[in-house]
Amino acid sequence: MGNKPKKAKRPQPRIPKGLRDLEPEDLVLRRRMIDTVCRVYERYGFTPLETPGIEYVDCLGKFLPEADTPAGGIFAFVYDDSEWVALRYDLTAPLARYVAKNFQELGMPFRRYQTGSVWRLEKPEPGRYREFTQLDIDIVGAGSMVADAEVVCVLAEAMEALGIPRGSYEVRLNHRKVLNGLLAKVGCPDDAAPTVLRALDKLDKVGPEGVRELCGAGRKDPISGDFTKGAGLDDLQIDPLLAFLAAPAADRDAYLASVEALVGETTEGKAGVVEMRELDAVLTERGFGSDRIVFSPSIVRGLAYYTGPVVEVVLTFPVEDAGEARSFGSVAGGGRYDDLVARFTGQPVPATGASIGVDRLLAALKALGKVEARAGRCPVLVTAIDKKHRATYQAWATRLRDAGIPTELYCGGGGVAKQFKYADRRGFTAVVVAGEDEISQGQVSLKDLRLGEELSRDATLAADRKAWLAELPGQFTCADEDLVDKVREVLDRYA
Amino acid sequence: MGNKPKKAKRPQPRIPKGLRDLEPEDLVLRRRMIDTVCRVYERYGFTPLETPGIEYVDCLGKFLPEADTPAGGIFAFVYDDSEWVALRYDLTAPLARYVAKNFQELGMPFRRYQTGSVWRLEKPEPGRYREFTQLDIDIVGAGSMVADAEVVCVLAEAMEALGIPRGSYEVRLNHRKVLNGLLAKVGCPDDAAPTVLRALDKLDKVGPEGVRELCGAGRKDPISGDFTKGAGLDDLQIDPLLAFLAAPAADRDAYLASVEALVGETTEGKAGVVEMRELDAVLTERGFGSDRIVFSPSIVRGLAYYTGPVVEVVLTFPVEDAGEARSFGSVAGGGRYDDLVARFTGQPVPATGASIGVDRLLAALKALGKVEARAGRCPVLVTAIDKKHRATYQAWATRLRDAGIPTELYCGGGGVAKQFKYADRRGFTAVVVAGEDEISQGQVSLKDLRLGEELSRDATLAADRKAWLAELPGQFTCADEDLVDKVREVLDRYA
Repeated sequence: MGNKPKKAKRPQPRIPKGLRDLEPEDLVLRRRMIDTVCRVYERYGFTPLETPGIEYVDCLGKFLPEADTPAGGIFAFVYDDSEWVALRYDLTAPLARYVAKNFQELGMPFRRYQTGSVWRLEKPEPGRYREFTQLDIDIVGAGSMVADAEVVCVLAEAMEALGIPRGSYEVRLNHRKVLNGLLAKVGCPDDAAPTVLRALDKLDKVGPEGVRELCGAGRKDPISGDFTKGAGLDDLQIDPLLAFLAAPAADRDAYLASVEALVGETTEGKAGVVEMRELDAVLTERGFGSDRIVFSPSIVRGLAYYTGPVVEVVLTFPVEDAGEARSFGSVAGGGRYDDLVARFTGQPVPATGASIGVDRLLAALKALGKVEARAGRCPVLVTAIDKKHRATYQAWATRLRDAGIPTELYCGGGGVAKQFKYADRRGFTAVVVAGEDEISQGQVSLKDLRLGEELSRDATLAADRKAWLAELPGQFTCADEDLVDKVREVLDRYA
Repeated sequence: MGNKPKKAKRPQPRIPKGLRDLEPEDLVLRRRMIDTVCRVYERYGFTPLETPGIEYVDCLGKFLPEADTPAGGIFAFVYDDSEWVALRYDLTAPLARYVAKNFQELGMPFRRYQTGSVWRLEKPEPGRYREFTQLDIDIVGAGSMVADAEVVCVLAEAMEALGIPRGSYEVRLNHRKVLNGLLAKVGCPDDAAPTVLRALDKLDKVGPEGVRELCGAGRKDPISGDFTKGAGLDDLQIDPLLAFLAAPAADRDAYLASVEALVGETTEGKAGVVEMRELDAVLTERGFGSDRIVFSPSIVRGLAYYTGPVVEVVLTFPVEDAGEARSFGSVAGGGRYDDLVARFTGQPVPATGASIGVDRLLAALKALGKVEARAGRCPVLVTAIDKKHRATYQAWATRLRDAGIPTELYCGGGGVAKQFKYADRRGFTAVVVAGEDEISQGQVSLKDLRLGEELSRDATLAADRKAWLAELPGQFTCADEDLVDKVREVLDRYA
C-alpha cells in the first residue's frame, strides 16, 4: 500500500471481535477514578510499577480458568522467530516475574500498584471485553496477615474515596485452606476439586440447589437450557458443602465458630481458620468491623494461583437488570499467592494482593450517579464565519484558552448554519459567534446551547420559561473586551 | 503447571528483547508530564479517545519505514483462527480506522488526543524500546492551515507548560509538497525518492557532505564502518538539494523566499509554498513568531502517510553525549495526512496531527532538572519491632495516612536492624520506631534518614554539621499525640 487509496482493495474500517473504542466521557471519568484510587494506594505506601504488555509464555504460567483450552485463554505469538510470547492476561503474573528478576536488588516486603490493559482470549459477552483495564496492588515478601489486612483495608478506603458509602459495599473474605479442608473432609477427589470450587463460587447466581446440582450430576440452565456437567459427588458429600455455604457471613465471629466446627479437624482447614482468626484480630485493631469487612463462605476466586485468604469487593446497592433489581456485584478481587514467585526462584516468597476491575467499577459509579455530567466535552466553540476576520477569531480563542477555558477554534469549512449544526452535534455549552456587523462595532455574540436542553428537562423551569429566559438569555451580545467574563458566566450556569 | 513449583522446569524470570520494566520515579514523573500536556490539549478543545492495542493488519496499513522488511516492523498474529491482527505501531492509523468506522456519527472537524503504548518490531538500540508511549493530537476533517496552526501552537504551549523555556525548543516545519517539488526539479526517479528524503532528514547527523554521499554513491559511517547504499543521483542533481538544505531556517520569510526561488516553478513545489505562506500568516496573526516556530528544509519525517506540512519539535539545549555536547534533539513529530481516512472511505478526509515521544520528552525534562527528586518514593515507614504492640503500629500508620501522609506499615519479618536496613534500601525520609520503653511512656521515636545524605551532599552544611544537627536532629523522641506534626516537620525539611 502506498499513499494513494486504491478503490479496488479498500479495507473495511472494523475492530476485532471483543475489542472496542472508548469515548471521551468514559475516559475522563476513568482517569479521575484511577487517580482517586491511586492516591489512596499511595497513602498506604504503594508506589507504581509498569511492566511490558508482552511477556514470555512460560513466565506468565497457566493460571487462567481457560488454561486447559487449546489457546489457553491468551493471545500468543512467536517473538523474534524464536520463543513464544503472549499479551499479559493479568498484572500479577508479570509482577511475580519482575520480583524474581530483581530479587537481589528489591528490599522486601515490596509494595507496588500498577494499572494497564490486560488481554484474555475469552468468548466475548455483553459488557465483557477481550482487552480490559486492571488496577492492582500487591505486597510481596510478607507472609503476615498484617499484609493481607493492608490490602483489604486499602480496598475499603478506595471505595469510600470514590463516594461509595459504607453499607453500599462489602469486602468479602474467605480462605483457600479452609476450602481445601472442606474438600478433604467430604473426600472430594483431586480431579473434581476445581469443579466443586467453581460450584461454590456460583452460590449467588444459582442458589443452594444449583450448587447441589453442580457438585452432583450436573445442572441444566433454566433460561439457556445449557447443561453443565457436575463434579459427581453424592449427597452425603454435598450436604457438608451446603452447610458450609450457610455459615453466617454477616458477622466474622459467628462465621469463624461455624466454619471451625465444620473443617477444624482437617489439617488445612485448621490452618486456614487460624489465619482467619489472626486476620480478624488485625482488622478489629484497626477498627474495620463487619460493617465493612465480612467473612463469606462462597468467595472462591477463579485463578489457580491463590493459596491463602481470598478477597472480593462486592457492591451491594441494587441496580435494575432486565426489569429486575439485583445487587451490582463484584468490582475487585484478589488473595494470597505464596507460590507464584517460587515458580522462578524455587524459594518461597509469600505475596498477597488484589485487582480492581476498572471498567466494572466505572459502570458502578455511573449507576450510582457519582459522575459529572458532560465529562469529556469541550465547553466552548469559537466559530469562524467570515474568513477575513480569521485573526479576530484566533485572538478570541487565545484569550479564552489563556484564561484556562477549554476552547475549540472552528477550523472546518462551511458557513454559520453548518457551524451551528456542528456545535449542536458535539455538545458545546457556549458558542462564540460574530461577523462583520458585530466585529466592526467591537462586539461579539454568545449563544448558550445548553439552555433549551435544561429547560425541557426541568419542568419547574419550563413553567416559568419566560422569566427564566429574561434572566438567563440564550443568546446575547457583549463588548469584545468582556468576552472571557461573559463566557464564564454562561459556563457558571451549569457549574 | 500447577500451583507447586517444579524444580526441574523453573522458568527464567526474563523479559523479551527490547522491552523493559518502568520504575516508580519515571512513572510518577511521566504521569505528571502527561497530565500537564493533556491539560494544554484540553484548553485547545481536544478530548480523549482510546482504541484497542490490537487492530486488523489491513486497517493499520503499511506506513512504517520498516514496511518492506519480512515482518513489516509490526507484531502480528492470527486472531480467532481467521484474520491477521497486529499490535498498533502508532496512534494515527487506529484513529483513521476509528474515524472511517464512525464517520456518519462524528461531527467534523474531529479533534482528539490519545496516549498509550505502541509496539514496533525494530532492532533495539540503547534508549530505544519496542514498546513505547506516545501522546498524540489530531484534527480530522479540516484542510485549512488553521488546523495545522492549532497543532503547531499547542505543541509549543505544551513545551512551555512543562517548564521548557522559550529559546530552548523550536517547532520546525517543512512541507512534503515542497520536498516533492524539489525531487521533481532535480529529476529524481520515483524509486530513489525515499532514499533521498531519508538523506535530507539526516542533515543534522551527517552534515551536508554526508547528505551528498547518501544521495549519490553511498556513505561509509566513519565510526561503525557500515556502508549505506546511496540514491545514485549525480552531482548536478545533488547540488540543488544541498542549496535547498542551506535555506535559512531561522526566519520564516527568508526561508519562503529562498525555497520559492528553488522549487516555485514545479507544480507541487508551488502548492507547498502557497500553503507554507498561509501557515506563516496564521501563525503570525497568533503572535507565534520565529522565536518559537521556524521553517526548516531538513524536516522530512519517516512515516509514508504525510501529504502536507510536516512538523518536528526539537529541544535545542545542550546535553553531554559521550563527552561531547550536542543539542537534545527531537521529542515530537507529525504532519498532515490527507489520504489516510480515504484508504477506507474512498473520499478525501483531510487530517493533521502530531505525536509526542513520551519517553524522550521525560528524558529531556530530567536532563533539564525540571523534575522533583525522590518522586515515586513513599516518604514514611512505621516499623513494627515488637509484635505485641501491633495495634499501636497500626494506629500510627492510620493516623499518618488519615492526615494525607503516604505511609508504609512494615509487615515483613525481622527485628529493628533488618527493618532499618530495609528503610535505607527503599529510601524513606522518616522512620517511626518504638518498642516497649517508648510505648509504655506514651512516646515514639522518629528518625530522619535523609539528613546524612543531605549533609554529605552540601559542603556548607557539612562544615557546620554540629550546629545543623543541633537544630535538625537526625533522631528524636516525641509524645505519641504529636506524631503527625513531628513527621510533617521532618518531611518539611526537604519540601
